[in-house]
Amino acid sequence: MNNITLIGFDGDDTLWKSQDYFDDAQIEFERIVGGYADLADARVHERLYETQKRNLALFGYGVKGMVLSMLESAIEITGQRIAAADVHRIVELGKSLLQHPVELLPGIRAAVTAIAADFDIVLITKGDLFHQEAKVRESGLADLFGRIEIVSEKDVATYARVLSEFDLSASQFVMIGNSLRSDIAPVLALGGWGIHMPYHTTWAHESQAEIAAEASRLRQAQSASALPDAVRAIVQSVAQSVAQADSA
Amino acid sequence: MNNITLIGFDGDDTLWKSQDYFDDAQIEFERIVGGYADLADARVHERLYETQKRNLALFGYGVKGMVLSMLESAIEITGQRIAAADVHRIVELGKSLLQHPVELLPGIRAAVTAIAADFDIVLITKGDLFHQEAKVRESGLADLFGRIEIVSEKDVATYARVLSEFDLSASQFVMIGNSLRSDIAPVLALGGWGIHMPYHTTWAHESQAEIAAEASRLRQAQSASALPDAVRAIVQSVAQSVAQADSA
Repeated sequence: MNNITLIGFDGDDTLWKSQDYFDDAQIEFERIVGGYADLADARVHERLYETQKRNLALFGYGVKGMVLSMLESAIEITGQRIAAADVHRIVELGKSLLQHPVELLPGIRAAVTAIAADFDIVLITKGDLFHQEAKVRESGLADLFGRIEIVSEKDVATYARVLSEFDLSASQFVMIGNSLRSDIAPVLALGGWGIHMPYHTTWAHESQAEIAAEASRLRQAQSASALPDAVRAIVQSVAQSVAQADSA
Repeated sequence: MNNITLIGFDGDDTLWKSQDYFDDAQIEFERIVGGYADLADARVHERLYETQKRNLALFGYGVKGMVLSMLESAIEITGQRIAAADVHRIVELGKSLLQHPVELLPGIRAAVTAIAADFDIVLITKGDLFHQEAKVRESGLADLFGRIEIVSEKDVATYARVLSEFDLSASQFVMIGNSLRSDIAPVLALGGWGIHMPYHTTWAHESQAEIAAEASRLRQAQSASALPDAVRAIVQSVAQSVAQADSA
């Protein structure tokens, strides 16, 4: 068993606020479509999510694909009655999502700085390349990270590729993030460690994950200030395992 | 002066067909908007390009941003009269652009294979991460490339970063592509070499480039079959420069 060498951080809702803006856009979308159809009868919320999920394989993650799914869904739900002015409001929703300022989560800069003092750190963030690059730039955190990986999907294959580029085994890697599906499950599956820091709101898609027997390599942090201790606890667990293995 | 070590290839309209699909989408867009406004009077072509250029800083390159610009432009040109059914046709235009099969340009597989036998090769392609990954995967060329870089912009800073990751000076690098603006000008500006292989159709945005005194490091190839010879000619130029420098 090896020492912990590399700590990965997720971006959206781990370093900076993100889902709140999507939640607000969703509410505004429902307000627009609500002018044409009864929201409950039309199952607006569910039908938008179904359209988004169906289009993920074509659009990938990110704001632009979400807006296109919103438009498709609005046209369908309104029976092609939506007015051009409301189409325009939906496009503008997307443009404002792409322009909101980057707001760091409380205490995250101090936590990242503290962890970077002892470990190599990497930012692994998913979504639209152009938008994620802009957020990284505006976050003011870019210089702390030895490497920034913007990926289209955070699955076992993606983490395996990143680890192989660092020439590390998964057991030397801890991933910190808010999404069980994207940040935790695939890393645990590879034999790595996870620190789950839940955000107060999570897209339904990101909550779905199977975390089974590997839970012994999973820690929880309720806020950024708890992250350095959570990393230290993992390092101690690894040291104890090594000591036990040595004495066995 | 160093030997040529690394050859870069552009993706769209260098390895595979791309702009034709965008041109077709543009024609279809004009047909849709032409139902509401006189195309010439409304300057449809120019106004779409203006909207695209204005939105580039927000959307970046790629199909999804183009569709959002088309929608914005259509709403504006029609004075908010465009019907939801036609909005839907524009969204579907985008979805079909994202789904067209990847069609390699004639002779490109042989040319890439021949060049890969003698040099490290890298694919440097711009645009939407998700769509470019899909195209790379479907091209069947991915295994030939030691590395694949999907970037949001192809400028001097991007090429400088890629070269530093390879630990190379620009003089050891040749970039092959159809866009003077994205593939050639920034590489020449860094002191590297370029092979321009024009495609029969080019987006206005990609034709704009200043190629000045560095033209001595620029070669032309009229088709993929001419690429291995063009690379060889550059290697000979470098060798002659070295010989001249030694004898001076």
